[in-house]
Amino acid sequence: MTALTRFDLTSMPPRYRTSFVNALSGFKSANLVGTRHPDGQENLALFSSAVHLGADPALLGLISRPPVSERHTLENILATGVFTLNQVHPGITEAAHQTSARYPRDISEFQACGLTPWYSGTLDAPYVQESRLRIGLRLRDTLPIPLNDTVLIIGEVIEVLTEPDAVGDDGHIHIHHLDTVTVSGLDSYHRTLPLARYPYAKPR
Amino acid sequence: MTALTRFDLTSMPPRYRTSFVNALSGFKSANLVGTRHPDGQENLALFSSAVHLGADPALLGLISRPPVSERHTLENILATGVFTLNQVHPGITEAAHQTSARYPRDISEFQACGLTPWYSGTLDAPYVQESRLRIGLRLRDTLPIPLNDTVLIIGEVIEVLTEPDAVGDDGHIHIHHLDTVTVSGLDSYHRTLPLARYPYAKPR
Repeated sequence: MTALTRFDLTSMPPRYRTSFVNALSGFKSANLVGTRHPDGQENLALFSSAVHLGADPALLGLISRPPVSERHTLENILATGVFTLNQVHPGITEAAHQTSARYPRDISEFQACGLTPWYSGTLDAPYVQESRLRIGLRLRDTLPIPLNDTVLIIGEVIEVLTEPDAVGDDGHIHIHHLDTVTVSGLDSYHRTLPLARYPYAKPR
Repeated sequence: MTALTRFDLTSMPPRYRTSFVNALSGFKSANLVGTRHPDGQENLALFSSAVHLGADPALLGLISRPPVSERHTLENILATGVFTLNQVHPGITEAAHQTSARYPRDISEFQACGLTPWYSGTLDAPYVQESRLRIGLRLRDTLPIPLNDTVLIIGEVIEVLTEPDAVGDDGHIHIHHLDTVTVSGLDSYHRTLPLARYPYAKPR
């Protein structure tokens, strides 16, 4: 067994600590969240906090930072009740990272970062045309997290657009075949290599 | 641009749907959550729902399923106020998956699945000795999610144990070097390949 070192968060400089703590949860998802202001202005933002909440109803959660400054994504979702999630692959990873820059409200991150808005006709929120797995969601709830003023945004999946070859006979989506990337910390992007699939676990 | 197929969730058989929806959020973290009943009985369970909530205070969230049947992890956390997160690497992935079997309360998943409990002395919850990144947390809040009766468990990081070589000068933890795995869907485990790190994004 390796002897591990104990790290004490209280003595870390703020930026070091932010980077350190962001890696603790493990590998994270990379999703571009597409929204639209009621005036039509499109917005796109990278989130690494999407979390599965349940399959029936099909619910996904997203953590939004405190609404102390402009949070275009949260404001648009509250105003329109819809948003899209678009998985990121290596061909759009740099553009996806660039959406996290603090653009003013009247700039579309689609245009600024070189991505293409696309509408399915089902909901009034833009998808990322370059993404190979796109999810349309309707806002179902927002739960404030009083400890740090973040907000859990809960959406119900209303449609999924992806490549049929990626979906197995059992319903499993082989997101590795879609080359979906994963994030660690604030800025580290990774591809994946299949290791194993295991059967449903039973006591033995 | 590839033409994608629209998938309609309402027509999917239940098991197919569960598998499909579990892959939508993207790649997920793999953490073993260690807890102890007040009577001393140890418990270990695999969670793929750990989510970063904030760096200061350092908060992590976990989604627990509805407490309609026995939820040993949630019950132990509520009873003792502490728990551990232990990142999973390929050497313990099969054992980690096996902890998701429905063992009765008087069986320790450590023993049943061949993992070793270890105590740091700081908190009364067991770490997984085989894990290369271990986090000790104190319960700070639980938020019920009324839509599907799941519960968001919020813990504050009180200590981190890992290999010092994995931590960069900027605080970034190179969890790829620790060979931390990532999960997709219900049962698909992956290793990772570094793709890129990008600087803090600014409008350009």
